[in-house]
Amino acid sequence: MHKGRLYLIPSLLADSKVDSVIPEGTLAIIRRLNYFIVEEIRTARRFLIKASISKTIDELTFLIFNEHTKELNLREFLACTAEGHDVGLLSEAGVPCVADPGSRIVAEAHEMGIQVIPLTGPSSILLALMASGFNGQNFCFSGYLPADKALRIKKIKELERTIQEKDQTQVFIETPYRNLHLFDSLIAVCHENTRLCIVAGVTGDEAYIATKPIGTWKKIRPDINRKPAIFLLYH
Amino acid sequence: MHKGRLYLIPSLLADSKVDSVIPEGTLAIIRRLNYFIVEEIRTARRFLIKASISKTIDELTFLIFNEHTKELNLREFLACTAEGHDVGLLSEAGVPCVADPGSRIVAEAHEMGIQVIPLTGPSSILLALMASGFNGQNFCFSGYLPADKALRIKKIKELERTIQEKDQTQVFIETPYRNLHLFDSLIAVCHENTRLCIVAGVTGDEAYIATKPIGTWKKIRPDINRKPAIFLLYH
Repeated sequence: MHKGRLYLIPSLLADSKVDSVIPEGTLAIIRRLNYFIVEEIRTARRFLIKASISKTIDELTFLIFNEHTKELNLREFLACTAEGHDVGLLSEAGVPCVADPGSRIVAEAHEMGIQVIPLTGPSSILLALMASGFNGQNFCFSGYLPADKALRIKKIKELERTIQEKDQTQVFIETPYRNLHLFDSLIAVCHENTRLCIVAGVTGDEAYIATKPIGTWKKIRPDINRKPAIFLLYH
Repeated sequence: MHKGRLYLIPSLLADSKVDSVIPEGTLAIIRRLNYFIVEEIRTARRFLIKASISKTIDELTFLIFNEHTKELNLREFLACTAEGHDVGLLSEAGVPCVADPGSRIVAEAHEMGIQVIPLTGPSSILLALMASGFNGQNFCFSGYLPADKALRIKKIKELERTIQEKDQTQVFIETPYRNLHLFDSLIAVCHENTRLCIVAGVTGDEAYIATKPIGTWKKIRPDINRKPAIFLLYH
């Protein structure tokens, strides 16, 4: 019997419409799958309805995998592939396995010899890098910076040093309600000429995209409180 | 008068079909633009025809920007925006401004106060990261490794050290005809347990995606000669 495959399925960002960011090829695969590994059933159902699946939600099997999942039984998430069923790993927002825990499932799939097929969709990190005007030939994504202020400042200094040493764009994120704390640390710590790009709500109608030197940011307070944002630094 | 905007337009990877990787929203914008900044007119025309633009190619204005372009007059590429025309920055393959020189144009747009709008499409680097099963919460793209063998080996050792120190996925590329040279250096230098993921021809019918420990790769010669490939290392 043909072994099932693992599809990596992007979801929406911000308030964008499905057909503005999800290719028809990705939608066609979503519509024929019956098994989904999801972080949260409620948001997954909402996305699948927007993606115009023709079957009812009750016909689908959802397996929940998120940061609370015990990792002892990763194989069970992929058990359906032994019976020939394809399974989709669906992100909460953007592409799976980037800035989310999904890569553990993919690693297990490789060990089990299951074919892994990544599908195209929106990634806030990639879109922010494109839009920044910064070096896209050498860049680093560090995830969340430390919440502790002293450690955060130490990390920012380290990132700024790496920009110079490696000519490397630095990309990072923050929990939305802490965005302005991070912004304040950045303008306090970085050199006047270091450029900061902030991208919030990308692909949405209210997208905010701006690249300016730190010296200029000191005179502007961006409207990014509680909005999912990407921060990028470059010289 | 309304000032024109700069759209960042992804193109195809490998031999994939337009609607399998380019969202309808991206296509709709491509179809209404009259000005395009491109690396090479021939490939740009070929892509635009595939994207089913309804106007004839002669109605479009192409501005050529690539690694040979003198950077003195970047503003001229964006001059049409002053007359209210939107302009599209089109990649040769995948998304613009990542692993290509387009980011210089975007940086200029920010300085000129032109709105920058990144559009969704396929990125071989991002798709490879998703498919690798490696850490997507901390990763680094280093572009091309040195062509000189001794320098390449030194760089690989440095990347492998960083994986351990920062729990960071390392992503890099090679000129396709040198892929197997890079592969040979990787299996010669890296620890048996370090995992290597190779992704070639992603989104195409002949996509090659495999993650294995270096010890296992020593027994396999991947069929990646002269194919655009992404290499990823992680512990």
